Amino acid sequence: MARTVLSSPTQEVIIGFDQPFVMIGERINPTNRPKFSKELKDGNYWRVVKEAKRQVEAGAQVLDVNVGVPLSDEAKIMSEVIALLQTEVQCPLVIDSSVKPALESGLEAYQGRPLVNSVTGEEESLEFVLPLIAKHDCAVVAISNDDTGISEDPDVRFEVAKRIVERAADHGIKAEDVVVDPLVMPVGAINSAGRDVFRLVRRLREELGVNTTCGASNVAFGLPNRHTVHNAFLPMLQAAGMTSAILNVYDEGLVPAIKAGDMLAGNDPDCANWINANRPKPAPGEAVGGRRGGGRRVGRGGRGRRG
Amino acid sequence: MARTVLSSPTQEVIIGFDQPFVMIGERINPTNRPKFSKELKDGNYWRVVKEAKRQVEAGAQVLDVNVGVPLSDEAKIMSEVIALLQTEVQCPLVIDSSVKPALESGLEAYQGRPLVNSVTGEEESLEFVLPLIAKHDCAVVAISNDDTGISEDPDVRFEVAKRIVERAADHGIKAEDVVVDPLVMPVGAINSAGRDVFRLVRRLREELGVNTTCGASNVAFGLPNRHTVHNAFLPMLQAAGMTSAILNVYDEGLVPAIKAGDMLAGNDPDCANWINANRPKPAPGEAVGGRRGGGRRVGRGGRGRRG
Repeated sequence: MARTVLSSPTQEVIIGFDQPFVMIGERINPTNRPKFSKELKDGNYWRVVKEAKRQVEAGAQVLDVNVGVPLSDEAKIMSEVIALLQTEVQCPLVIDSSVKPALESGLEAYQGRPLVNSVTGEEESLEFVLPLIAKHDCAVVAISNDDTGISEDPDVRFEVAKRIVERAADHGIKAEDVVVDPLVMPVGAINSAGRDVFRLVRRLREELGVNTTCGASNVAFGLPNRHTVHNAFLPMLQAAGMTSAILNVYDEGLVPAIKAGDMLAGNDPDCANWINANRPKPAPGEAVGGRRGGGRRVGRGGRGRRG
Repeated sequence: MARTVLSSPTQEVIIGFDQPFVMIGERINPTNRPKFSKELKDGNYWRVVKEAKRQVEAGAQVLDVNVGVPLSDEAKIMSEVIALLQTEVQCPLVIDSSVKPALESGLEAYQGRPLVNSVTGEEESLEFVLPLIAKHDCAVVAISNDDTGISEDPDVRFEVAKRIVERAADHGIKAEDVVVDPLVMPVGAINSAGRDVFRLVRRLREELGVNTTCGASNVAFGLPNRHTVHNAFLPMLQAAGMTSAILNVYDEGLVPAIKAGDMLAGNDPDCANWINANRPKPAPGEAVGGRRGGGRRVGRGGRGRRG
């Protein structure tokens, strides 16, 4: 049973078949955010720290760190941001870059066992990233596209993932340290995109024995009422056996939906996390624990409070 | 591919693998509702009609009709209620009773092709209900318990379902007219209850080729924040391949969650139902269709409106 162990100096997070779903916060990312981009370029990291703390508070167990700004010294920024974040938050981080020196400098700066995002099935990526993962004994996200591009056929994507896992093994990297991203297509463009990914996740889990992750927001691209789509999609992925995702933990209702999904997928022993997360808050001045029987009030009367 | 056809004089609803999930409204049921019970006993059916119309408006495609009140003439009530409802609403109905004469009188009164709820694997039930289904050429919910009770082992429940389908075949009833209820246990009592039912639904679909249904509300029995559990559970059931459920369509957010689930399960061609259901409403005085570009406002700004 795959167990991908990520760590910081003070925390360990396990992505695994029998573990609660791991929510990786996606918000440390300057794409389409001009102010954020300029600040990063200027070495001003206050927003990185703010987004980190806010995401952890909202429920993220791991944070994706992407500092990709065109025409910047991404290696320097990555190294500084990783070092800073490890003094500001406790959780493990994802080093997310398509720039080789930034992956290297991020890995040098990191204390603990990070997740690297990502290696693909492209020859150049395999040859650069896998030796780095082996050298630093960490885990990697494997994206199932290769030199021919992204296949719309989920069976082709399965074969690409299988090949990456095999190539990783050649470098001494265990399958449990390869977290496969089966690639989620927008359901508005490919109507079978959701169904395809559910089947693919089951195959990756049952046949390759690997953990899985995805960029969940892509599925609803171009559609109205996206947060309701996300709130349904994540539990469906959990039912199919997905074990983590990179997502927007601020998305209304998403964290409770995933916690309910954990319980329904059998990964919340005695429903303890669910019951704790939904414990009635004592009224001002009331002793804590004094309204245990009021649980029903929160369950029924708490409508509308999904955050 | 199983297609269970239900009909009224004016509407046809198909439960099927490639169809939108069929929501069966559970609210015509006097259990634990003393006023409703007394009214039914007195032949006063205004609440039945109100619940019927309100559920259809909320999104129910089929209505379960249960008029079980202790010490009443259930056969007479069922017959009258079925006849009345078929003049008041257009949709097909489920005749739901554990009382033999009530099933008979309901079937006699019904115009079209109803679903009968239910037959079990108990010998007495098989011998009484299956001939009735064959005689009236309708469909039946098969509950996977037998004379030994309800097994906690999902594989035993699968075998019971298989036996009911075989017994139905002996009466000339096709597998596609048997809608199996795999029985959903409360996850608070049996932690694997959700996971068990997902696997069971997949087996029923892939190995027996039958449609499935369940009483969805049972899963969250005794837990806080039940509507969030339901909103996660239904899409998970859809991901596993369930094709209908008996549920509370008034439950906040449940109907949108199921419509999102349809789209993500690949059963909403071109996402047409989703886009229609989430079309921005024109402001008063504004021409319809004049704010197509405002879709994003509803998607992001529409937070909190889930109903």
